[in-house]
Parts: sequence; C-alpha cells; structure tokens
Amino acid sequence: MTDKISFLKQAPAVFCAGGVTLHPMKENKYDQEGFFAAYSRFPRSERGLAAAGEWHRLRRLFPSTGGKRVLDIGCGFGWHCAYAAGQGAAYVLGTDISGKMLAEARRRNPHPVIEYRRRAMEELEFPDGSFDVVVSSLAFHYTPAYGELCCRIYRWLTPGGELLFSVEHPVFTAEGRQQWAETVDGGTVWPVDNYFTEGPREAEFLGHTVIKYHRTLTTYTETLLQAGFIITAIEEPRPELPSPEIPEQMRDELRRPMMLIVAARKPADAQC
Amino acid sequence: MTDKISFLKQAPAVFCAGGVTLHPMKENKYDQEGFFAAYSRFPRSERGLAAAGEWHRLRRLFPSTGGKRVLDIGCGFGWHCAYAAGQGAAYVLGTDISGKMLAEARRRNPHPVIEYRRRAMEELEFPDGSFDVVVSSLAFHYTPAYGELCCRIYRWLTPGGELLFSVEHPVFTAEGRQQWAETVDGGTVWPVDNYFTEGPREAEFLGHTVIKYHRTLTTYTETLLQAGFIITAIEEPRPELPSPEIPEQMRDELRRPMMLIVAARKPADAQC
Repeated sequence: MTDKISFLKQAPAVFCAGGVTLHPMKENKYDQEGFFAAYSRFPRSERGLAAAGEWHRLRRLFPSTGGKRVLDIGCGFGWHCAYAAGQGAAYVLGTDISGKMLAEARRRNPHPVIEYRRRAMEELEFPDGSFDVVVSSLAFHYTPAYGELCCRIYRWLTPGGELLFSVEHPVFTAEGRQQWAETVDGGTVWPVDNYFTEGPREAEFLGHTVIKYHRTLTTYTETLLQAGFIITAIEEPRPELPSPEIPEQMRDELRRPMMLIVAARKPADAQC
Repeated sequence: MTDKISFLKQAPAVFCAGGVTLHPMKENKYDQEGFFAAYSRFPRSERGLAAAGEWHRLRRLFPSTGGKRVLDIGCGFGWHCAYAAGQGAAYVLGTDISGKMLAEARRRNPHPVIEYRRRAMEELEFPDGSFDVVVSSLAFHYTPAYGELCCRIYRWLTPGGELLFSVEHPVFTAEGRQQWAETVDGGTVWPVDNYFTEGPREAEFLGHTVIKYHRTLTTYTETLLQAGFIITAIEEPRPELPSPEIPEQMRDELRRPMMLIVAARKPADAQC
C-alpha cells in the first residue's frame, strides 16, 4: 500500500479513475462451517450492537439516516442495517461476501427498506451518487484494495454524503499474531513490529487462521484525504467506565487500542 | 486528557474560551548543562533539517510562508524558523523555554525577519489573528496542556491559517520507557501498554530522565477537530529508501512509528 500512497500523491486522478483492476483475493472465511459456527456464538453476533464494545462510540458518530440511502459494506448479521433502517432510512443495502451471514441477517434483521445482497466488497458497482451514507464495521481490514474502495465510495456518495467505518487498529494488526507478548522480565506487552510493512497478516481468530491486511494510520487517513474526503472524526474506542469499575477481563482493553473508527464526508460542493 | 476530551465534546465553547487555567508544569530540561551538551551533539542539532529523519515529509507539508507571519513553538536551534524565513516569510517568531537553545538559535540561524523569544509554550499570549502559520517540531509532547494550546493556536491564526506539528507517536510514548522489549522467545518487539492512560511518562533521553506526555491518537486529532480545525494531513514519517537500501541502523525505523505529523487548517470562513 505504501507504493500506492506514493503513487496516489503523484496522480490521484488517474488512481481514482474508473476501470481500476482490483486485487483478485477475496477470502470468504465466514462461509466455512466451523468458522461460521464459532462466529455465531460471539456476543456481538447473538445480541447485536449492545454487545459490541465499540458501539457506544460508533453510534455517536453514526450519520443521520432519515430519508437517506444507506450502504453497509460487510454487513454481517445486519445489525447496522437494522439500526439505519430504524432511524428512518429510505433504503438500506447490506452487502457481504458470505451467504451464511446474509441468511442470518435476513432472519434476524429483516426490514421493509433493507435489501441484503451477496457481493465481495471488491466487486461492488454502483452509479455515481447512489448513496447518502456508507458505513462499514470491521470489514476493510479484510480487503487488500482499501485505496480503490475509498475512491469508489467517494464516487458512490452524493456531495455532502458521509462515510463511517471501523477497522482493527494498526497497532493491533502490525505484528500479526494479535496476541500479548511475554517479556523476559515476566510481564506482557502488546507487540508492535513491522509497522511500515503493509500487507497480509495471518492471525488466529476463533480457532482458525484468518488473513487480515495491516495498514498504517497514514494509509487509512491519507488515502481518504487524497480521494477527496474531509475527515470529521478519528477515534479509538475504549471502555467508557471509570477504571476501577472496568471488569477484570476488560482491563487489557485500556492497554492497547484494538479498533480505529474514522468518519469522513464528501464535500458538499464536490463536482463529481 | 481523556476527561478533557469528554468535556470538550459537551462544551467546546467553554473549553476554548479565554481565561483557561493552564497546568503549572513547565519543564526546562534543555537549560541543564549536561543535557544541553548532549542535545547539541545530535546530528539534527549540528546539521539542521537535512539530518532530521522526518524532514522529507515535514517539508512537503510545510505551509507556504511567502509574505506571512509565522510562529514556531518550541523552536530549539531555529532550523524551522530559518526555513520559513528563507521561503519568504514576512515575520517569524521562534519561541522556546530554553535560553541556551535560543542563544544557539541566534548564533546559527539569525535572519532579519526572525525574532527569538524565551517563553514556555503554556505562557504564550497573542492577540487573535496574529499569525498565518504556526509550526511546532517535536515539542507538544512536553506539555500537559495540549488541549488548551490547540484552542489558543486556533485563535492566534487568521481564518485560513495553517498549523503543522510533529510529536512523538502515541505508539512511541504509550509504554513509557521508549526501549525495545525483549520477549521470552528471544526476539524484540516495540512494547505498547497503558495506551489509554494518558499523562506523564519518564523516559531516558540522552542519558537523562525526561518527562513527556503520552496522548492517544484520538486526543491528538479530536482535540483539533473540536477546536474547529480541518485536518489536512496525518502522517507517520518513515525511511523513504527501498528496504534493501536502508542502512542497518535505520531498519528498526520500519518496525514501529516514532513520529506523528499533523497538518490542520482554520476554516477560511471562520468567524473568530
């Protein structure tokens, strides 16, 4: 991605123009039986947004959806689609690469204005200005094609349209194993390594090996700015309770950032 | 700072209004003889910007200074002041808490449009709209009063005015010791810990214990946004050579981010 960023800076128009060849890799781990079963038992899968640690921050940043057309990329069980619909969206399109996820979304979160469509995020195609709001929760770290996706989302949004997404934090993805490291003095630290070496990482997740793409904070933000977006928020969600009241098993969440939330807007006076 | 952020979100106007009581702590390590002598032998002290690893990125983001009034907060030996003056600034004010630093700045980087003034950054006072450009290199992590400073800088800038600063990266400051950690498997990693516990850290620097303030990325960026700034760039500088050509002693600079550069602009239509 670093090379792409350098390239972006030299020629954003070419980079963002149509006809970009997307990377071929599209992993569909969620349709594997064992993985899906494990994912389905996650609190956030079973109980939805209330069980998602970052929802208190994401909700505050969630664009108003009243009367708007909303796209949710990597919608999973459809919890964010349901929220957008509940807030009065005129139309919500939830897309996901996994048929199993979408079957569950249709079962748990049906709504007259929601359409669920099976599509890898790299394969999404829409006319310019198709949506007023684009959201994505914890999906962009699964694609190697973040730069192209940002440019496409920019085009799909109407002027003034809003993008809100969360990803695993660069601090969380850099080293790759996504485990605390034991140090020689008997403690543990969160390991950061290979930070500027962007690209795939194999991590253990729910007992399976999953490929996620590490990107630097620079790439996450500069790619948006180069695509034309205005950044309106950058947040690292953390437990909101006062420290003594945080349950033991959540204390580690104060030790390192796990997620990054970014909100951005297409300028209201954008020409395209 | 986290509490301040919450507070900021509730009442930015009050937070940013005049008359804010600043934190009392202003450390002036650089006027201690041994520390200053060690600092003076740093390549970036002796040879200036060309020897500063991040300058290649900072320069690309440096606001144009032709005919403008520029403030450099924590100017040190005055290298950035000289650059701004060399680019045609009408007036450059370099401020620093250290008299020794300023004596050196006057000797090494004198210029008819540059004024050097001894002042802790927490004590700076200017009329609204005094500057078109504010820059600061590796100084803001020394103040506990980043939030107040952002609000003040916003007021000191003219509408459309630009802020560019670098700080030690949150990944670099979080754990505190600023050393690679040895792991039980015989390797080293950069340790992140206590990320969301913002505040002072004691690190060894040039053989002395120095107090620096750790802040999260969220605090660095959200504070600016809440103060009214538009963020125009967020960059983590890294060696620019292709990996095989990076000298052995610089390889570690690809393993973890050390600095964060942020560029921001006061909206051209700002009312105050």
